Formats: sequence, structure tokens, C-alpha cells
Amino acid sequence: MSAPVHAPIARRLAGIAPFHVMEVQTAARALEAAGRDVVHMEIGEPDFPTPDPVCEAAARVLAEKGIYYTSALGIPALRERIAEHYRMHLGADVAADQVIVTAGSSAALLLVLALILDDGSDVLLADPNYPCNRHFVHTLGGRPVGIPVGPGTRYQLDAALVAQHWTRDTRAVLIASPSNPTGTEVAHDELARIAAETTRRNAHLVVDEIYLGLSYRGAPRSSVGLAEDQFVISSFSKYFNMTGWRLGWVVAPRRHVRDLEKLAQNLYISPPTLSQRAALACFEPRTLAILEDRRIAFRDRRDYLVAALRELGFGIPVVPTGGFFLYADCSRWSDDSRAFCRDALAATGVAFTPGIDFGTHRANVHVRFAYTIEHARLQDGVARLGAWLATLPVRPAHA
Amino acid sequence: MSAPVHAPIARRLAGIAPFHVMEVQTAARALEAAGRDVVHMEIGEPDFPTPDPVCEAAARVLAEKGIYYTSALGIPALRERIAEHYRMHLGADVAADQVIVTAGSSAALLLVLALILDDGSDVLLADPNYPCNRHFVHTLGGRPVGIPVGPGTRYQLDAALVAQHWTRDTRAVLIASPSNPTGTEVAHDELARIAAETTRRNAHLVVDEIYLGLSYRGAPRSSVGLAEDQFVISSFSKYFNMTGWRLGWVVAPRRHVRDLEKLAQNLYISPPTLSQRAALACFEPRTLAILEDRRIAFRDRRDYLVAALRELGFGIPVVPTGGFFLYADCSRWSDDSRAFCRDALAATGVAFTPGIDFGTHRANVHVRFAYTIEHARLQDGVARLGAWLATLPVRPAHA
Repeated sequence: MSAPVHAPIARRLAGIAPFHVMEVQTAARALEAAGRDVVHMEIGEPDFPTPDPVCEAAARVLAEKGIYYTSALGIPALRERIAEHYRMHLGADVAADQVIVTAGSSAALLLVLALILDDGSDVLLADPNYPCNRHFVHTLGGRPVGIPVGPGTRYQLDAALVAQHWTRDTRAVLIASPSNPTGTEVAHDELARIAAETTRRNAHLVVDEIYLGLSYRGAPRSSVGLAEDQFVISSFSKYFNMTGWRLGWVVAPRRHVRDLEKLAQNLYISPPTLSQRAALACFEPRTLAILEDRRIAFRDRRDYLVAALRELGFGIPVVPTGGFFLYADCSRWSDDSRAFCRDALAATGVAFTPGIDFGTHRANVHVRFAYTIEHARLQDGVARLGAWLATLPVRPAHA
Repeated sequence: MSAPVHAPIARRLAGIAPFHVMEVQTAARALEAAGRDVVHMEIGEPDFPTPDPVCEAAARVLAEKGIYYTSALGIPALRERIAEHYRMHLGADVAADQVIVTAGSSAALLLVLALILDDGSDVLLADPNYPCNRHFVHTLGGRPVGIPVGPGTRYQLDAALVAQHWTRDTRAVLIASPSNPTGTEVAHDELARIAAETTRRNAHLVVDEIYLGLSYRGAPRSSVGLAEDQFVISSFSKYFNMTGWRLGWVVAPRRHVRDLEKLAQNLYISPPTLSQRAALACFEPRTLAILEDRRIAFRDRRDYLVAALRELGFGIPVVPTGGFFLYADCSRWSDDSRAFCRDALAATGVAFTPGIDFGTHRANVHVRFAYTIEHARLQDGVARLGAWLATLPVRPAHA
């Protein structure tokens, strides 16, 4: 008997790579199940629990009942608070009617890319970059064009790179600042030059600012307002420690809000109600004070980890200034980041992510460390790694 | 000075119609703001609040903290409970590893259609149908092919219609049973014949069963297992009264779970954590008893409303057997359902939805009533409509 024939699946699946970080996590869990202690530096999620005022607000909402659908754009009070937060803390003039609350920044990206991409539209983005971004582009029929970046541009695009890689089909430029995996930011004036480039060429600028609140250079400044055709994506997950609540937003030009609303109504109806109402408490002074303490803790961890990993021999030529990731060159020991991560985990119980999750440009000699664990655990991980690395031969170019 | 030129937006937007029901709701809210009492029969959401055991479970989870991301496939305990629910209550053999918990049935549809549709794939579906379904197909590059249906097939597709409308590019057939807007179901043996047709032609069968729990003919029976390449979409929103929690699921063939997981990881990371953990309480006997009482209440409302609207002169040739909608022929008075709804609202304060939201086939002479309000309000609405309709001229064909 012949094998059964199955209905065909979409071609897009071939273009969506699995996350290698999941392979790391599976191996890490297997080690833990076997009794090993694992230091988790692979996880892209704050270790801090959701701040108490937010959980308390959620409890009050639960007691009141009435967890029904909301407007597809989000509850008006939350749109207002978000806009106010831009004015008070992020140096940008945003009105509530430009803010669309979404089911995580994932849904924000879905709405924006569904709005702006046609089949065959090119989107320029940095390589390395957060893999979901390019997979989203791909899912909606667009073509992600990864532009190799390195220490010279702080692992980010600049206006010259954008101009140089422009294609006839380029419809948008996607910037993530601070970036996952590199933790580096695009300077405001450079972003302004990129915005001038997209404006001049009649294209869209999409800026992922989900790590903006976790900026360590001083007061964070949003890019909102740099271009006419600009969409800023953000989230309650990272800075506000609300990952599991699945809540984000987009700041959009007013003339696109009606179309984005139409897409939201169709693609997910409305963001989670309890999350929206609880998130109102994010903007209370009490919550912001908790978050500021946590931001300082992240900054201190970064300071420690950058120095400690450099000491071990990792290459970190640019100090990351935001988020909670470091992108480190491991070429001293390996040119196969996947094997390097696998071997390190097996030998030391320290889990981190191979660069190949984030693109193709020198991804084989980079790894990503997340500092989403407490200081003592970071120190433990570094000590374990150090002992193991000392046993490895140094590759010829580094000898 | 010339008008500013803006970056182009996607062609798909032109194919996504706004919801006319929103126009009705906006007008209804304006009336309410002006002091009028409005009877809401336009709303596609149960009036019953989320059952207490579910809210109590959520409160316990909140107190424990730890609302982090979950597996993209959903928490294992919930996947297990859903599978068990199929075995115990829906007459189908489902294993936990076939169940993917999603951020609402919207995300379930997004995953499934992203998996199976290429640019230019045709999807056959009934006209009338839930508008999001065809807009989803369209957003992912597919072509929704609406097949006109009427009372002869209970406003549903049958195997003969499917065969007759098959195109070279047909990749899938999408059935909703019970259907929004018609409340009618496809008989199990007819669904089996449709499944045989899709299997024979090497295509996918997607069945939207989000209203299956609200079935009034006897014990509901899922279509899971009728075809090899079959995806069943469901939701906690309607039967379980959890709309604002944004939680649904898909039952998929095992060989597709890995790809669906990959898509979920990229497109929304994980479903809302608190919603998932609270939803475990949906399957407790105490909750199921509450839901059964509410199902009976819906059935009683249906019995009342079908008879009352027929009495007024609406055409309801097929008694709906599930969900909470009636699709009624208003051609006795109007061949412009949009104007009819607008005029009815203005004259009577009763809000309901024009058929043009659901397709094009005789949509101008149909309207949808939702019975998501309590009995006394239904009676009030019917009385007001009756008084107004008595003042309208009857159109020639009906005289």
C-alpha cells in the first residue's frame, strides 16, 4: 500500500525556522529532570513578577465581574494613560487616539505589517534581529531583507546602510531599539536620518521599542514623530513585567487608525480585558517606583556581566545600553554557535542561545546571554563557564 | 503646495469590509447617550458573566503570582482537560497532544490558515458566513469563495455544493456549525460526506465549532476525526462565557502540531497565562452545571424569538439549532437591510445587524438578531418592533 497523500501546506512554512533556543530549553529541562542545577541565561523574559499594584488591580476587576470584549482599539482609559506616559516619560507627543492597544506586541506587529505589506514587499532590517520580526514579514507575504551589521554601527542599521540596501520593492524599514539580541540602541539623531530616508522614498518606518523602558543611558526617548509614515510598536511585557498578560500597543499615524481597527476587529476582536484593566495600574507612581528599582537591577547585572564575559574571552566590542541581552562573540573557541551552546550546557549546566536564531551574519560565532536571573546566579554561571572554557583549545586566529 | 504623498498601504485592505454592526452600535450608543433605552440584539457575545468558579480560580492564580509566558502550545493540564472534554461530552476521540491552546479562536484560525494557505489558494465557505473568516483568508493571501446557501441546505454547505464549486486552486473548505449568523448546523453525516470530498481532492477541512456547546438538538457531537486533513477550531468565549479572556483552541492532526507550534511561537508567543489557568475550572462539574442552565436559557429564548419574529412577518424558514443568532428575512418591508436596521433603531431603539455584514447572497433582505439579552428585554424589543412594522407599507411581492 502506498503512503497516504496529504493536502499540501503553505510554502511560507519552509521560510520559518524553528527557534534554536527551544532546543536549548528542552535540553536544559532534561538536565534539570535528571537532577542537574541549570543556570538559565537563555530566557527572554524578566524574572521579576508582575508588580503587586497590577495584580491587585486585576483582583479588583475580577471581583467586579464583567470580563467582556472591549473595543478593538482597547479601553479608552488605557489608551489615554499610554499617551500620557509618552508625554511624561518618553519625550514624545502622543495623543490617545493614535494609540491602539493590542494582544501583545505580536498583535501590534501583525496589524502594522498586514496594513503595509503586499505580497513581494521588501522590509529592510538588521541582521542580527529578533527572529519573530522577519517571520512575521514572511507570513504576510513580504520579504525580510537582512542587512549585515556589526560593531561599527553598534549592531544597528544607520541611514547609509538603509540607502545602500534599498530595493525597488522596499516598502518599510524595521528598527528594534534597544535590540534583541544585541541590547544596542540607535541614537535619536541617526533614527531621524533613517526616518528622513524612508520619508523621502515614500516608505514606512516601523520601530520596535519594546525594550525602550529598559534603557541605561539616561531618560529614554521614543522615536514617535520622526516620520509621517511611522509605526511604533511597544509592549507591557518587558519593562512592565507583564509577559503572560499578552498586552502591547502601537502608536500610529491618525489616518491609519481606522484601517488598523478594521484589521484588529477581524484578526483578534479585542485585547485581553483583564490585562487591559489591570495595566492601568502600571502608570501609578507606586508601580513606576518598583519598575525603576528593577531597571537599576538590570543595569547592575549588565555592568557585571559585560565585564565578566569579556574577562573570560568573549568579544563584546560595544556595550549594550538597553534591554536584558548581550550578544557575545565566541569565535575564540568555536565557529559553530549551535554546538558551542549545546556543549556548554552539557558541560556546565549554563543555558544560553546560539546566534543562529537571530540571522545569518556571523551568527555562527555569536551567542546571546540574557541577564534575567539574579546577580548571584549570574556569578555562578560565569564561574562555571570560566572553568569549562579554560579547558578548551583556543582557535588559531585567537592564539 | 501639493498634498503630502504617503507610503502605500497593502492591497488587502480594500478587500476587508468594515463591520456594519459597528455602525449600528455607534448609533445605538449615541441614542443611549441622548437618554433613549436601547434593546441590544446586535451583540455577538453572551450576556452571562464568566462563571464564578472560573473567576475564583483566576483570583487564586493571581495570589500565587507568576504570570509568565507559557509553552506556545498552551499549558499541558489545559490541553489534557480539553481533550477529555471531547471524549466525555463531544463524542470524539481527541488526545492532548492534538490540542493547541490559542489566544482566542481568532489566533486558532490565524495559525491554521497560515499553515495551509498559499497566495492564491481558494477557500470554499458558505455565504452568509462570519465575516472574520473570509477576511482572515484574504489577509493570508487566500481567496474566500462564498457559495450562496439558503433554506434548502439549512443555510450551510453540503457535499454537492462543495463538489459543484470546486476550483483548480481550492485548498480548503471552511464550515461553521452552528453558524454565525444563521444558527444552523451541518448534520454529522453530511459533514462526513463533505470530509470525504475534501479528502478525495487532497484538500483541508476546517470546521469552526465555537458554538458547538450551544447546541439545542441534543448532545453535541464534534466533527473531529471525519477527515485526515482536518482542523477543528473552538473557543472558551461562547459556551464557557469567557469572551474577554481571549482563549480558544484548535484540534489538529498530530503531524501538523510541530509547524503550528512554530507559527504560534512567532505569531503570538503564548496564549494569556491567567486565562489558561482559570479555564481549567471550566471543566469542573459545578461550572458545567452553570453552563447547562445557561444553555437551557438560550434555548428558551430561541424558542420565544423564532415564534415572535415569525408572527411579526419575518421569514425564518429553518429553525436555528445552535448558538445565539437568528437570520431573518426582512423582504416583506425592505430590500435594503442596512437602511432597515438604521431606521428600526431610530424608530424603536431596537438594535440588530444588517445581513450585508455576512456576505452578498440575499444579504440585502436579511438581518441578524442576537438573543444575548434576557427574556423580558427580548419581549420588549419584539413589542417595539411590532408597533413600528405595523406602520410600514408591505412591499408588492408580499402584499
